[in-house]
Amino acid sequence: MPKLVVRCFGISLDGFSAAPGQSEKEPFGRDGLRLMNWVFETKHFNVMVGTPGGVEGLDNDFMAKADENIGAGIMGRNMFGPPADVGDKAAWKGWWGPNPPYHHPVFVLTHEKKAKLDMEGGTSFTFVNDGIESALKQAFAAANGKDVRLAGGAATVRQYWKAGLIDELHLVQAPLLLGQGERIFEGLGGVESLYECVQFTPSKAVSHLLIVRKGL
Amino acid sequence: MPKLVVRCFGISLDGFSAAPGQSEKEPFGRDGLRLMNWVFETKHFNVMVGTPGGVEGLDNDFMAKADENIGAGIMGRNMFGPPADVGDKAAWKGWWGPNPPYHHPVFVLTHEKKAKLDMEGGTSFTFVNDGIESALKQAFAAANGKDVRLAGGAATVRQYWKAGLIDELHLVQAPLLLGQGERIFEGLGGVESLYECVQFTPSKAVSHLLIVRKGL
Repeated sequence: MPKLVVRCFGISLDGFSAAPGQSEKEPFGRDGLRLMNWVFETKHFNVMVGTPGGVEGLDNDFMAKADENIGAGIMGRNMFGPPADVGDKAAWKGWWGPNPPYHHPVFVLTHEKKAKLDMEGGTSFTFVNDGIESALKQAFAAANGKDVRLAGGAATVRQYWKAGLIDELHLVQAPLLLGQGERIFEGLGGVESLYECVQFTPSKAVSHLLIVRKGL
Repeated sequence: MPKLVVRCFGISLDGFSAAPGQSEKEPFGRDGLRLMNWVFETKHFNVMVGTPGGVEGLDNDFMAKADENIGAGIMGRNMFGPPADVGDKAAWKGWWGPNPPYHHPVFVLTHEKKAKLDMEGGTSFTFVNDGIESALKQAFAAANGKDVRLAGGAATVRQYWKAGLIDELHLVQAPLLLGQGERIFEGLGGVESLYECVQFTPSKAVSHLLIVRKGL
């Protein structure tokens, strides 16, 4: 059975996936990009963006695994953008340039009506206005038997989690204090009876935590 | 300079230090005691309570260090008790029996007026009705040059933290999902500019995180 998975979802020690003050230059909010420092150190990331260097090891293995067997993606409107400071909002095509790193169909949850965007490299963005279950259905259809990756942000992950629709969540907690921002653990009372943390794998930089639906 | 420190403060993966439903049998709430499983495995704990066994190693070292150079303690009313299900509330003398594991003066923040309790082994409980700064002043005086340990619970730690009065916090995060309960990371916006996580030391069971006031 294809699964809905969250992979390499970065959070701070205090449970925030982004700081306040998202802008075109700072998609993770003011000083929030350091949540992702562990990613930039991996070989997988450097190969992906075409830069030299990066190291192998545990964090790299998790990064490589995150892209395995994924046929489609889902993200929320804040993750797609545009942030408040972008002038020409109609021209916005995401943060990732002409060839985004997804290479599969991505379904964006939004109230805005917008035509599908076909990008280079196999990525497309389809804007879904009728809720999380509709996006999930469309994503599973597009994934054609592969898994669907729920990319973020926190509010979108929480909605699917609270509804019990996520099969596996891989969170990556960095030992950083953000103090405020987008919370992943909010309004999730009840999920503790449906989900459990089955794997705790710290690297030198971060803690990898795998949470799955009980009985899976 | 003597410091105000939090040591071995256990939290779940989702940032709760106790589950809902505190009762006489379950001081950490329903099924919340498993947050402390790593403690029960240590030699230090077993020696303290007079049981055989327990292992040495990283978690044990942190447990032993937590009691070093502490001259007094502070705790909140929920940590002292009594919980709602206790009948004879006037007779309550804490969760820890006649000889509590503190062996120093403890100042309990409460609105209740109650005479000081002198316990065996050097522990006393003094009930403070006039706020966190008063309790801190009394605790530093009683500590006589040693540090003061802020024991919990979460609401009490948050109050001192938000006020910038804590020098060092050692949190111990267990890879468990509680879903709801007493949150440590709530209403702490601003602390990220005053504090930083300077140490991240995972054991096999938990993550030890040391947060200090910047410039300390």
